[in-house]
Amino acid sequence: MVRQITVDLGERSYPIYIGSGLLKDVGQRCLEAGFPLRSPLLVVSDSEVAPRYLHVLEASLREHGYTVVTHIIPAGEASKSLAVYEEVITTAIQAGLDRSSAVLALGGGVVGDLAGYVAATYMRGIGFMQIPTTILAHDSSVGGKVAVNHPLAKNMIGAFYQPSMVLYDIDTLLTLPARQVSSGLAEVVKHGLILDKEFAYWCREHAAELLELNVEALGYALERGCAIKAAVIGNDEREQGQRAILNLGHTIGHAIEAVGGYGVFLHGEAIAIGMAGSALLAAKLGRDASIYEDTVSMLTALGLPVRLPAETSEDELMEAMMHDKKFKEGRMTFIVPDTIGSVSIVNDVQQSTVREVIAQLKKEESPW
Amino acid sequence: MVRQITVDLGERSYPIYIGSGLLKDVGQRCLEAGFPLRSPLLVVSDSEVAPRYLHVLEASLREHGYTVVTHIIPAGEASKSLAVYEEVITTAIQAGLDRSSAVLALGGGVVGDLAGYVAATYMRGIGFMQIPTTILAHDSSVGGKVAVNHPLAKNMIGAFYQPSMVLYDIDTLLTLPARQVSSGLAEVVKHGLILDKEFAYWCREHAAELLELNVEALGYALERGCAIKAAVIGNDEREQGQRAILNLGHTIGHAIEAVGGYGVFLHGEAIAIGMAGSALLAAKLGRDASIYEDTVSMLTALGLPVRLPAETSEDELMEAMMHDKKFKEGRMTFIVPDTIGSVSIVNDVQQSTVREVIAQLKKEESPW
Repeated sequence: MVRQITVDLGERSYPIYIGSGLLKDVGQRCLEAGFPLRSPLLVVSDSEVAPRYLHVLEASLREHGYTVVTHIIPAGEASKSLAVYEEVITTAIQAGLDRSSAVLALGGGVVGDLAGYVAATYMRGIGFMQIPTTILAHDSSVGGKVAVNHPLAKNMIGAFYQPSMVLYDIDTLLTLPARQVSSGLAEVVKHGLILDKEFAYWCREHAAELLELNVEALGYALERGCAIKAAVIGNDEREQGQRAILNLGHTIGHAIEAVGGYGVFLHGEAIAIGMAGSALLAAKLGRDASIYEDTVSMLTALGLPVRLPAETSEDELMEAMMHDKKFKEGRMTFIVPDTIGSVSIVNDVQQSTVREVIAQLKKEESPW
Repeated sequence: MVRQITVDLGERSYPIYIGSGLLKDVGQRCLEAGFPLRSPLLVVSDSEVAPRYLHVLEASLREHGYTVVTHIIPAGEASKSLAVYEEVITTAIQAGLDRSSAVLALGGGVVGDLAGYVAATYMRGIGFMQIPTTILAHDSSVGGKVAVNHPLAKNMIGAFYQPSMVLYDIDTLLTLPARQVSSGLAEVVKHGLILDKEFAYWCREHAAELLELNVEALGYALERGCAIKAAVIGNDEREQGQRAILNLGHTIGHAIEAVGGYGVFLHGEAIAIGMAGSALLAAKLGRDASIYEDTVSMLTALGLPVRLPAETSEDELMEAMMHDKKFKEGRMTFIVPDTIGSVSIVNDVQQSTVREVIAQLKKEESPW
């Protein structure tokens, strides 16, 4: 069974395919995406994913007549740097990629963001296909946000650049370590929290199946997650308004990642703590306290942290948030839940209130 | 007298203003462009331009209530690198530029391309204004092509990113050294050569006035040049077809610059030789020999070179051309004049023919 969702962006619309065994069809899918056989394809993957799946991908591409060059980056967020970006560009030039060529991102969010930024900027933009291999990447592979990090802040250098297609082979998820699974489910349940109450509670009810990587449950969860994301970006591709609701938990989450040097917490873990923080903020701004309780119960059911480690520096965290690109014109903006399944964009949140939330997130010892 | 041209690109349309004394109006123009006062502006300029004009710009911006931060790069093509790009991004982050901020490029093509690429990619794209201070930049500041160089090839890393406005203060051109003036006029006459026969011959007739920087002649030439460019990109913003005609002379020209390490020839000089080469190619492909004679007479009237130095390596030049991004799917594509004022995009030009042209361009000793 192949599930299909369309991201509706006019002439930049594209399909997302979700199903088992899709990797071996990638050659055929590249033809469907319109990538010409005469132009070399560049596959970007990482040191953990490539040994498992690259051979399947390459075989399918070569079988259909494509010339393929690969660039394997070290696994981990540290590869989302301008230095690694430049190395990939060098590979592309040396392999003779031209304006009709395409970049295929085989991996998680780091690979997708980096490879996508290469595709967006090589010769001012060439073809691009996302082939996510993590649950987390159901989020990052859809919507066209591509970027690398600057030492001072995450995703500071980037573009809006839509792929021609997202090819999601569920089989690649089945070997994910438990911590990665939980991290990925953080973005899944986020999509419920912002726009789909029923789906948010469904995630809590089916947490055990999701954590066990039940294919049916996982397929449904990814389809719902991608569909919600597609609907949001279809209305606001370049984040000039409502798209910002997708950032629920990300303001605090990105700061946690920045302070931890992008290594201590996985992305989903950081934004889980951030979503708990947003729910605390909601209570401070007068929303019902049950939002926080429900949010925390959903996140913990999925094996996610909801507290900051006791040793976290509040000052460093506040400083990191001030550099976050979501602070427009000096004010602090947060995505705040109004209820489960609905959020508001609140500008002019006072720094002192944010500091209280951070202090509260530290109150109990984190289990992490 | 302020001349105004509109670049018509739907919701990305923008005005070009050409006239004397426009620098001191930049604060007012930024308000018109919609840049909010609360977000810092970043002015990028270079070590030659900044000492002359930066104070005028800054005074006007501050007078209108803007917060301004500046980043001065070393003058010259070597600054169009990823390393310098990263330094400018660091300045932007440290100065607290946010999503409503804008980058102002005060300088020639190097400053405009680099600053534009910063604007295109900082936080996935912020505001951008071009304030060209060379004749050459009448070309590069219009049309939204922004980029930095890779050591292996020019403009390899970039984006299509339109400014909100182009502000062209003719007074900044009056101190240009003679060689820079001629170099800039190469792109001016190019616009005649591709689309406007009358204007091409006008440039030859008025060469002396142009070289003497007669304000009236210069204003008219820049207006015509910008208008022709605006018309071309209005029909093909992302160079999927006809926009490529703007690359007349650039295939050979870029290779000359690459082989010379971006330092021996000025850009306009390199593309003047390239345009002479394109006219030679035209003759080889059966066009009238008078095209070459007229092209050469126009270029030499403007003080431009039309020959390669005898020591040029033909192999290196051919190799550099193979890396040029205009070679789609391995074929060699050239813009070839059909007559003065009209060109064709010719695919499948044989490498051996190009090699003959290069050899012929070397036949006589260059005066340079």
